[in-house]
Amino acid sequence: MDSPSQLPGFLESCQRRIEAVLSAEIEQCDASYSLREAMAYACLGGGKRIRPVLVYGANRALDGNLADADPAAAAVELIHSYSLVHDDLPAIDDDDLRRGKASVHKAFDEAVAILAGDALQSLAFAVLAEPSRSHAAATQLRQIQVLAAAVGANGMVGGQCLDCCATGSESSLQALEALHRLKTGALIRASVLLGAHSAESATDQQLADFQLYADCIGLAFQIQDDILDVTADTASLGKPQGSDQHNDKTTYVSLLGLEQAQSKASELTGQAISALARCGSEADLLRELATFITSRAR
Amino acid sequence: MDSPSQLPGFLESCQRRIEAVLSAEIEQCDASYSLREAMAYACLGGGKRIRPVLVYGANRALDGNLADADPAAAAVELIHSYSLVHDDLPAIDDDDLRRGKASVHKAFDEAVAILAGDALQSLAFAVLAEPSRSHAAATQLRQIQVLAAAVGANGMVGGQCLDCCATGSESSLQALEALHRLKTGALIRASVLLGAHSAESATDQQLADFQLYADCIGLAFQIQDDILDVTADTASLGKPQGSDQHNDKTTYVSLLGLEQAQSKASELTGQAISALARCGSEADLLRELATFITSRAR
Repeated sequence: MDSPSQLPGFLESCQRRIEAVLSAEIEQCDASYSLREAMAYACLGGGKRIRPVLVYGANRALDGNLADADPAAAAVELIHSYSLVHDDLPAIDDDDLRRGKASVHKAFDEAVAILAGDALQSLAFAVLAEPSRSHAAATQLRQIQVLAAAVGANGMVGGQCLDCCATGSESSLQALEALHRLKTGALIRASVLLGAHSAESATDQQLADFQLYADCIGLAFQIQDDILDVTADTASLGKPQGSDQHNDKTTYVSLLGLEQAQSKASELTGQAISALARCGSEADLLRELATFITSRAR
Repeated sequence: MDSPSQLPGFLESCQRRIEAVLSAEIEQCDASYSLREAMAYACLGGGKRIRPVLVYGANRALDGNLADADPAAAAVELIHSYSLVHDDLPAIDDDDLRRGKASVHKAFDEAVAILAGDALQSLAFAVLAEPSRSHAAATQLRQIQVLAAAVGANGMVGGQCLDCCATGSESSLQALEALHRLKTGALIRASVLLGAHSAESATDQQLADFQLYADCIGLAFQIQDDILDVTADTASLGKPQGSDQHNDKTTYVSLLGLEQAQSKASELTGQAISALARCGSEADLLRELATFITSRAR
């Protein structure tokens, strides 16, 4: 990693790329005007796009063709967007602000927010299943298996439910880790794996290495989120600062203290980079991403 | 159709079969106890199972093996169940009663209802994508395409959104039909098509015939729903009678009057049966189902 950083340029090109892919997909949703507007509002024009970047990064690390990773990149961001829309609802986290603007149920209404989230989830699977010139049906099916397992009751939504139930009650470090491995970790892992599958050449060893990498950055990502909730301000977060504490949530910071949380995040970053020891310089982007995730300010 | 009716026995065996399939799938969701309980509550032990029955009926009409239709039957019922859970939410239809018992957000809470619906949708795609010994990957992928297109913004959810927006405002027959072709018709059509695909032998002509059949019974089903909302009582409906009128909804009955609505439903039943003219006696179950749909009392 002595060469100049490729990351800023890569992030920017991924962000532009995913915006175009998502925008084209949402344009095709034309049954209901307000539904399409809410879907576009929820997933266009904002966000860090960490998950699509991981898809593209894993594709690159296996010498893949970025265009082959577009469906997977779109799918994970559609899922992420839907989960934010539903999480923000009054019955769940009751957040009025997201990515610096009104959340979907405030900008539209609750019914439209629920339905837009539902439609974004369907669209994620539709995109992954679209007829493909570059992927074998078996590869697409494998991608759908990975995504469906990651986002359902044994993945993201299961974690979200544990989070709802845990709010306000004391929680151990082990329980917190189990929660986050599902709530945020499962989709981050799926992003890396879908990116690897999009390159069509991944070996089992590479998939195992990528999975370990993904698990480490997934946890590091969440710890950094908890840190930022304490250290950043509302303007850079795009959501209310201090909302974890306000909601009486157990976080890495509340359990470990700020300093230990920061050192755990750094440790995980190191482990993520070590997991890629068998990979060549094509994986430098993933290595840089691991560092980026715990140094980001929002 | 001079032979004795096969339908009662078939309905019962399909209902038993789908209960076992769904129950096994939900048992595997073990990350969060309350989530799994809510999912089970939403989709086990009740319901007419019309959509799985259509899947199995279409499979039978093409001499398929019923076991090959289990994933598709489960997937359409999981989608149907999730849509009921979300539709019942206070922000959408605000119904406290479903299938004769408290709706999910009343029996659990709103957060769990939103998340259980989300997880049921993911599970539908997971089930269709499960490794299969009997289906080619291309067939499974085709099934996922059909389902994803049917349930998203250009299908069921799009129709639901039109329905939310249309509530309380005057609506034409044409608009009502467009709405229902999406809201209930799309998933009914998908059920028949997925059943056909599960038999692996469907020709394009057969798929076109089945699609016409499905479109006719889909509309007939909705008209019958509107009729029952006026003519049946709360106990047999398992949901509040008269809720359409109460919610000031435009229905076939409000637009056409009861008698004309009934004759339109019969006409559609006839068209559905005619669409199967090229099929042999294996399609008798589908023919009987068309009649059943407009003669059902709940």
